[in-house]
Amino acid sequence: MKKSFGKKAVLYQHPALVIGSYGIDGRPNIMTASWGGICASQPPCVTVSIRKSRHSYEGIMKNRAYSVNIPSVKYIEETDIAGTWSGKDHDKFEELGLTPLKCPDVNAPYVKEFPVVLSCSLVNTVEAGSHTMFIGEITDFLADSELSGENGMPEIEKVDTFIYDTASHHYYSIGERLIRGYSAAKSK
Amino acid sequence: MKKSFGKKAVLYQHPALVIGSYGIDGRPNIMTASWGGICASQPPCVTVSIRKSRHSYEGIMKNRAYSVNIPSVKYIEETDIAGTWSGKDHDKFEELGLTPLKCPDVNAPYVKEFPVVLSCSLVNTVEAGSHTMFIGEITDFLADSELSGENGMPEIEKVDTFIYDTASHHYYSIGERLIRGYSAAKSK
Repeated sequence: MKKSFGKKAVLYQHPALVIGSYGIDGRPNIMTASWGGICASQPPCVTVSIRKSRHSYEGIMKNRAYSVNIPSVKYIEETDIAGTWSGKDHDKFEELGLTPLKCPDVNAPYVKEFPVVLSCSLVNTVEAGSHTMFIGEITDFLADSELSGENGMPEIEKVDTFIYDTASHHYYSIGERLIRGYSAAKSK
Repeated sequence: MKKSFGKKAVLYQHPALVIGSYGIDGRPNIMTASWGGICASQPPCVTVSIRKSRHSYEGIMKNRAYSVNIPSVKYIEETDIAGTWSGKDHDKFEELGLTPLKCPDVNAPYVKEFPVVLSCSLVNTVEAGSHTMFIGEITDFLADSELSGENGMPEIEKVDTFIYDTASHHYYSIGERLIRGYSAAKSK
């Protein structure tokens, strides 16, 4: 028999996504979000859930665009702080020593120092209780070219990203490579 | 300058979620999905994206319920196969040696052998191109009691789950504990 822990929003494998957007004043801002992920393959879409009270909310609604920046462990402190401070009180790019560059194809800034960026065009919003889900079509996947590996895509070991565990409230690194997807059925 | 890789649905930190549901024939089934995650805290909600062609689609629509089962590495082959075979052709519980138990509070089966289960009541569906997003309210978080650690919640090291990297098409284990969330700003 399993034990009931009540209504918990815990999956263990939460991403740490750094969302870039211009505010309604035009200033670039970032915030860290763990409620999000890919929601469709064709067209490729990604969701991120943001509370209406957050500084990023109005800017994303106005510009209909955001970037999803994947941080490396090297920038874990900046990622954590970007989820703690508000853009209302802080110029997070400046204070964290990060460089905002404009996405080539949408009106959102991305973080130059982070290894991987998805530029996103807002296509839908869905109300989900405490949060608004932003559904963005991924218009481009940008990465530092020296990260590419065996199949041309940036390698997870070089991206060196991490996850957020909401049960222990700690970040965790990515571990070792296990089996290949869609491989187990062949050995059955 | 970052290199453009085009429109890619790649975030690196994708979960491997095993979705349990009863089919329209009442038989328990599981499928593995990586497009999903928490989308709201209050009430706690989780999304999973499923193509209409999947066997699970109609059953979830009929029963308005599903379970999200978090696998441990011990069951990585079963997880991979559950994402390869279809419930139209296979009794995946039986053939994979897994035990279906009914969620106490919703009409969906869960996997007894997996360490953590979210039981979910379907509250909304959203069309997103290739996939339909199911938004479920988490009605309970169930886990094996021997997994509990320092703060009472199951510990990620004992849950021993893994992620799916869609860039390399491989599963990866969870690595080492890094900093605590909301800790970095205090040292600034």
